[in-house]
Amino acid sequence: MQGCKETLDNTFSLISKMDNKGAVASYIPELAKINPDQFGVCISTINGETHTAGDAQTKFSIQSIAKVLSLSLALSKIGDTLWTRMDFEPSGNAFNSLVQLESEQGIPRNPLINAGAIVICDILCDLYKNPKKELLQYIRKVSGIKDLTYNEVIAMSEKRTGHRNYALVHFLKSFHNINNDCDKVIDLYFHLCSIEMTCVEVAYTFGFLANNGKQLGTNIKIVSPSQSRRINAIMQTCGFYDEAGEFAYKVGLPGKSGVGGGIIALLPNQYTIATWSPKLNKKGNSYRGMKFLELFTDETQNTVF
Amino acid sequence: MQGCKETLDNTFSLISKMDNKGAVASYIPELAKINPDQFGVCISTINGETHTAGDAQTKFSIQSIAKVLSLSLALSKIGDTLWTRMDFEPSGNAFNSLVQLESEQGIPRNPLINAGAIVICDILCDLYKNPKKELLQYIRKVSGIKDLTYNEVIAMSEKRTGHRNYALVHFLKSFHNINNDCDKVIDLYFHLCSIEMTCVEVAYTFGFLANNGKQLGTNIKIVSPSQSRRINAIMQTCGFYDEAGEFAYKVGLPGKSGVGGGIIALLPNQYTIATWSPKLNKKGNSYRGMKFLELFTDETQNTVF
Amino acid sequence: MQGCKETLDNTFSLISKMDNKGAVASYIPELAKINPDQFGVCISTINGETHTAGDAQTKFSIQSIAKVLSLSLALSKIGDTLWTRMDFEPSGNAFNSLVQLESEQGIPRNPLINAGAIVICDILCDLYKNPKKELLQYIRKVSGIKDLTYNEVIAMSEKRTGHRNYALVHFLKSFHNINNDCDKVIDLYFHLCSIEMTCVEVAYTFGFLANNGKQLGTNIKIVSPSQSRRINAIMQTCGFYDEAGEFAYKVGLPGKSGVGGGIIALLPNQYTIATWSPKLNKKGNSYRGMKFLELFTDETQNTVF
Amino acid sequence: MQGCKETLDNTFSLISKMDNKGAVASYIPELAKINPDQFGVCISTINGETHTAGDAQTKFSIQSIAKVLSLSLALSKIGDTLWTRMDFEPSGNAFNSLVQLESEQGIPRNPLINAGAIVICDILCDLYKNPKKELLQYIRKVSGIKDLTYNEVIAMSEKRTGHRNYALVHFLKSFHNINNDCDKVIDLYFHLCSIEMTCVEVAYTFGFLANNGKQLGTNIKIVSPSQSRRINAIMQTCGFYDEAGEFAYKVGLPGKSGVGGGIIALLPNQYTIATWSPKLNKKGNSYRGMKFLELFTDETQNTVF
Repeated sequence: MQGCKETLDNTFSLISKMDNKGAVASYIPELAKINPDQFGVCISTINGETHTAGDAQTKFSIQSIAKVLSLSLALSKIGDTLWTRMDFEPSGNAFNSLVQLESEQGIPRNPLINAGAIVICDILCDLYKNPKKELLQYIRKVSGIKDLTYNEVIAMSEKRTGHRNYALVHFLKSFHNINNDCDKVIDLYFHLCSIEMTCVEVAYTFGFLANNGKQLGTNIKIVSPSQSRRINAIMQTCGFYDEAGEFAYKVGLPGKSGVGGGIIALLPNQYTIATWSPKLNKKGNSYRGMKFLELFTDETQNTVF
Repeated sequence: MQGCKETLDNTFSLISKMDNKGAVASYIPELAKINPDQFGVCISTINGETHTAGDAQTKFSIQSIAKVLSLSLALSKIGDTLWTRMDFEPSGNAFNSLVQLESEQGIPRNPLINAGAIVICDILCDLYKNPKKELLQYIRKVSGIKDLTYNEVIAMSEKRTGHRNYALVHFLKSFHNINNDCDKVIDLYFHLCSIEMTCVEVAYTFGFLANNGKQLGTNIKIVSPSQSRRINAIMQTCGFYDEAGEFAYKVGLPGKSGVGGGIIALLPNQYTIATWSPKLNKKGNSYRGMKFLELFTDETQNTVF
Repeated sequence: MQGCKETLDNTFSLISKMDNKGAVASYIPELAKINPDQFGVCISTINGETHTAGDAQTKFSIQSIAKVLSLSLALSKIGDTLWTRMDFEPSGNAFNSLVQLESEQGIPRNPLINAGAIVICDILCDLYKNPKKELLQYIRKVSGIKDLTYNEVIAMSEKRTGHRNYALVHFLKSFHNINNDCDKVIDLYFHLCSIEMTCVEVAYTFGFLANNGKQLGTNIKIVSPSQSRRINAIMQTCGFYDEAGEFAYKVGLPGKSGVGGGIIALLPNQYTIATWSPKLNKKGNSYRGMKFLELFTDETQNTVF
Repeated sequence: MQGCKETLDNTFSLISKMDNKGAVASYIPELAKINPDQFGVCISTINGETHTAGDAQTKFSIQSIAKVLSLSLALSKIGDTLWTRMDFEPSGNAFNSLVQLESEQGIPRNPLINAGAIVICDILCDLYKNPKKELLQYIRKVSGIKDLTYNEVIAMSEKRTGHRNYALVHFLKSFHNINNDCDKVIDLYFHLCSIEMTCVEVAYTFGFLANNGKQLGTNIKIVSPSQSRRINAIMQTCGFYDEAGEFAYKVGLPGKSGVGGGIIALLPNQYTIATWSPKLNKKGNSYRGMKFLELFTDETQNTVF
């Protein structure tokens, strides 16, 4: 992509000079300790270019971004039968709301809100004897990071304080949409969310979604081309909770955010872009990350729309 | 687009042989009288190709599809100040629900659900002395159909029976989000929804959204390139009510449906495609239209994602 | 009742010395003009005693208190078939909410919230050629006030501004729970709410509910003993909107409030008590009226419970 | 009460001849095993009369009826500060709904729905080192049954299957309205609901609520007269979940039902009446119990209203 590095650098420079608004997520105690002024970005093109700016080599907790990986694993294993357990519609509600779940009888709106991601974890518990190990091996394979591990401190921190997620798994079970033991399922979920990567690693990991389902560089198939397009569609409509419309409107790329302050976004057949800055806006998405991506696509004038 | 005509014909033929499921919308008495087995499609490429199949030259009531035109008129006139009056988020609810409106204090979720389209009509009443005339002239200009008129029979039919829409306009007014007289606003709304076009006309009319905001053929600017992308983003996340996620997942194109059985969808920089078949699925979208577009993009393997 | 006058006077004196908190209802412009410091009370016993304090002879807009009269008229005419059109359950929502109405398919929760009272008005339109005249004659009969009239200024004020109520009647009609023309029904509703009485008149009017359905003094039957008990039951569970539980807990009498600042409450077989003070608490019930009744029953130690 | 025994016998006989509709609660496996045709009633007057009919001496699981006892214990210990943790308003929702809890930020609607009763259990965990033992001693004292114990089989059955209640306690904790360990609180809750009594025992136990707060016979003070009236008020407005209005309308007495098929109801200063029949109507209240009480008060023409 011509001029890609310049646009990245200029946009990064502009955003760095602006006020760094918002607040670091406080509900997971471990995340509240982070230095809020860190800011990194990385773009990976399907032609093999990588450009970075700022703290692109610092590990951060990718949190809900990892839900795209559990989805891609489950979808590649069981295909569209997945959708007997959940829907793929935007929720119009906060990421951890229980309201819709009650009126819709325990069928989560989509796999990227907490309820849906927990059901995905239950599916992985159905599929594997040791789902925690298998999921980790899958993420190692997709990311190419051989020594990747769960961050047990983060996982334990959530385990002590994540009462809303415990409520969700029991609520789902009361609607018979959890087959396994609630504690086992939620343990897998908390570990999934504890994964840490750098912007460079995130951009590479999700490269398969810009590359018709094949890993960047190796061209190993992660999901089918059709599944890749469909995961992108879900990210577009459901990737930013109650701000999915805003991201589509202002940025125009499929993407997914995490409360650790990370965002992955991508332009199919062209590039993935990862941003990280810990302060979140009111809807729970990285303040600087959202601004950066908005300016970046304003500049490139190139979106899926 | 190579092979475009063949794919169109083959897909049309396949769908025509399938069961024609669903039910014609009955809540607007005039629409209930239609022959339910009509089926037409038309594709218009930005290179000037047009291909059709079936009843592509029969006029039908485009209904909510017209909401994209009132949005593009309002957006081209007042720009992003539009968003002080409504949001651009998917609703996760039926097209005519009042529930979210109450908890969100009269701010409609987006301009493509009824509540949002009614507020757009109020904005047009603010802008023009004779909004009904100005809106018609705008649609004539965008569609290139010089003698286009409102269908007064359809408009009157809705006026007599559209109690849910009357409820919406008064509810919005109780939250001070309607400036003009409720009767004037709802009259404009019912006329907007009464517009009739053929598939060929619909495909041409919405061509500007596949052409960076410029009318097909003439290259007259309808909206800016950035506005064009943003309207597409709204159609992608909000164009199919409670089935927006499904359309994104299965079809992968921005689009908008109407209860008259029409659908417009488009691939930016390539084509628009209009389908029409009156029977609707449970979510209120054309049964055959949805199936056709799903198979069509399965075949072309070309979507925004 | 022994000591009744003393308790009334002492309690009135105590409340008069306290801060007069809250705010006069502003959404009906005519009501907003009232002197907020007026305060009257009247007790009527079934033995024929009447005691008053303060502004007990000043007319005020009884507003929703009148809904008990439209209910008693409809119930005395059509009996329990009334309940095919609405329920008699507390709502757990504000008096003018549309949310429950949507999920419960146009069946109002009870006859004392706006939606239910509007359906009662529709029933009266079914029953009478000239429902406005018949309703007025009924209220004249029950109250014994021969020259009682609707306050047209109040009714017109609501007509111009009562968009939430227009929304309700159209919403109900969209669920086919209004048989008559919406404008006719809502006109009757606004007139019903425009009735004005003094505390003395209110206490006498509702005396039949403390007297097994028979008018005080004359012993004319207004409703059957069983209907009287049932109207009291509905007032107990539904008479104070989202504060019905609080009134039951703190006061312990069936009652009904109006946004004009009036309250009627009663102890079956003993007395009715009317209070009026225009400033409302956050839930829309008279601040002083609620306090007065709480202290009064604290003192008498005599409630239905 | 004159004729009390005859009315009881006649009503019992009438109901016994009617169809026994409804279904035994199946969500607690232990309860599903019960013989559905059992039916018992007992009336206890404050003058010391006791009359029974049918299976009045058979123990049954009183389930939610016990929530009135945990409420009376907590209220007698901490008084109205209780209401900083919950409200006393009817819910307009099912007994185990989470919807209102989310919009009302973890403040349960009242102490008789599951969420409120769980918070009461948390309060008891705050008050006592060994709350399970203290609660049992309290119930032994109030009921006069010296060897009363929790039914561990029922408690364990709920523990294995009561996922909705686990969801509630964690949801409440996420709003910081649970101070103690979730497992400890829910264990106390399941034990509270496991209490078993006969109709005769239930009628005696709740006698204090018809006797100004004093135990029948002994006149030992259980709660103050004012607290007694207020507990009755809460039972009247909240004792039958989404059917509280119906019970007030048709029966006209404060009361409380349990999914084991029991109901307690009472007329202050006169009597308590206990019914038990396992089949429940759609709202979760005993089918025969509701019918019996409706006919009984129709016959006596004596209710709180």
